[in-house]
This record gives sequence, structure tokens and C-alpha cells, in this order.
Amino acid sequence: MGRTADYSKESCAVAATLEVIGDPWTLLVIRDAFNGVRRFEQWQERLGVARNVLAARLKTLVRHGVLEPQAYSERPPRHEYVLTRKGKELSAVLLTMHGWGTKHLYGEEGSGVTFTHKACGHELDARVACACCGEIVQPRDLEMHVREGRLTVAEVLAKDEAA
Amino acid sequence: MGRTADYSKESCAVAATLEVIGDPWTLLVIRDAFNGVRRFEQWQERLGVARNVLAARLKTLVRHGVLEPQAYSERPPRHEYVLTRKGKELSAVLLTMHGWGTKHLYGEEGSGVTFTHKACGHELDARVACACCGEIVQPRDLEMHVREGRLTVAEVLAKDEAA
Repeated sequence: MGRTADYSKESCAVAATLEVIGDPWTLLVIRDAFNGVRRFEQWQERLGVARNVLAARLKTLVRHGVLEPQAYSERPPRHEYVLTRKGKELSAVLLTMHGWGTKHLYGEEGSGVTFTHKACGHELDARVACACCGEIVQPRDLEMHVREGRLTVAEVLAKDEAA
Repeated sequence: MGRTADYSKESCAVAATLEVIGDPWTLLVIRDAFNGVRRFEQWQERLGVARNVLAARLKTLVRHGVLEPQAYSERPPRHEYVLTRKGKELSAVLLTMHGWGTKHLYGEEGSGVTFTHKACGHELDARVACACCGEIVQPRDLEMHVREGRLTVAEVLAKDEAA
């Protein structure tokens, strides 16, 4: 993405994630994929993004295994893009962003989209929980550990593309 | 951020959030703020970002109430930037990004940073939970509702800056 150079020597999962999805168009492409969009023309029409930009973003997402091309026509050859398991696990990022924007930008009026948690019937107010014990966690409940000698962002992205 | 025009007519909390924090530098500025960085020179040194870019990002974050300037010297006048409550609630976005990058980019080797959930002693594997019932939620547990006539991204950002 051209911005790698500056923090490519860090070893940070946030910085590495931003290199893959950290572009507004990219995250909106993924948002629309969760809403059933699979084809180039659909994204283009919904987002109004330039065709060359959209093509480049889709290519990056395929290269990193977030989207997977699937043929839907042989003559002419056409394919659509579906979220992989890796791509689907970005739902947590999108839901926490949606939650923050709903609360802190839209406020009481609410935005154009809400989510109901079917099990309890309430509108989702997304929190982070620990998969191990199930408890909701706040930053104060966490202890951060810095470890030396781990792969840098540049190294981990090269590995991810080669995978 | 110059990209607003294209999706400014949507009413979407994700798109609005991306307008405020959706820039790799901005999210890394916020990440470092969680790690105790408060001063211009510290960010500049850690991130290696151009001074004019950093100044612009900090200004945007102050305008949207994510960071708050606090004077620490009167002569000469100097201030530092601290996370507001609104800013602190971005921890959920950063933790889910950290979790995704750790699992899907770094994999078994792990990145340079881990979080231990103090209450249960395990390394945090971040999930999204419903604040109301406390259950961990997957996309299939949610029902999406689209509502018409809500504020667009452009409108909500103008409101947020004026607040």
C-alpha cells in the first residue's frame, strides 16, 4: 500500500492488519461482502469507487486470502469473490467499528443499520470478550507483553502473500 | 479526508467511523496513545511519520473529540494529547484488529505484542459479545435492519465536528 516502509520494521498485529484492510475502500468492500455482494459491478455501483481502484483492492484481498475468486460462468469466463474463513473473521472488526460509530458519531438518532441479537432480542451493543472464559474485557483487565525478535510487519506480509 | 464524497450519502456507522479513524497513521496514533504516548515528538519518533501528516491527524482526532489537548507548560505554551472517553472506547476496534492480525497474519509464531486476560490468565483471543446478555455473538446470531431517512455520513460528521 505504499505506506508500509514507515512502520514495516515494527512487529505489531495491528499495523500488519492495517496493511491488509486499512484503507476505507477496502473495509467497505468487506462490509458489502458481508451483505451479500460478490461481483465487481455490484461493488462498483454501490460504492461509486473508480474501477481501477476497486480492481486493485480486490486483488490485494485475494492475495491475502480474505476473498476467494469463484467462477460462475465459463463462456465468457467470469468470477465472483466470496469471503474466506479468514475474511469472515473480520466481522469482529466491522462490528466493533459499527458499534463505536453508532454510539459516538450517530448517537441517539442511530444510523441506517442496526443489528438485533436474536438470542436476547436486544440491539447489539458490541463489546470485546475473552474467548477462553467468556468474560467481557476492558483494557484495564489486560496485561500487555512486548516480545522481542518477532517477525516485522514487512516480513509477516510477505509470508502471508506467499501462503 | 478527501474520500468522503463517494460514500457521503450513505447512512452507515462503519463508513462514518472510517472517516474519523480510517487511515493507517490515525489508528497507529491511537494505538500508541493507549500505550502511553501523549506528545507530538514521541509519536513522530515512534512512527517516523512526516510532521505535517502527524499534525493533521492529531488535529482531526481533536476535532472529533477522540483526543483532548492538555497544557503541560505555560511558558513556553505546550500541550499533550490524551484519549477522551470516546477515544478510549476505540479499544474494542484495536483489540479485534490485534486479534485478527495475530491469528491470521502472524499465526503460531505470534507478534511482538500479546495481551493476558488477568482474570483467567489466558492470552486474549478477542471475540465480540453482546453488552446486554454477555453472550459471544457470531454474525449468524444477528439480524440486520436497514432504516431509511437516517443521517448520512457527511451529515453526521459535520454534526460531530460541531459538537
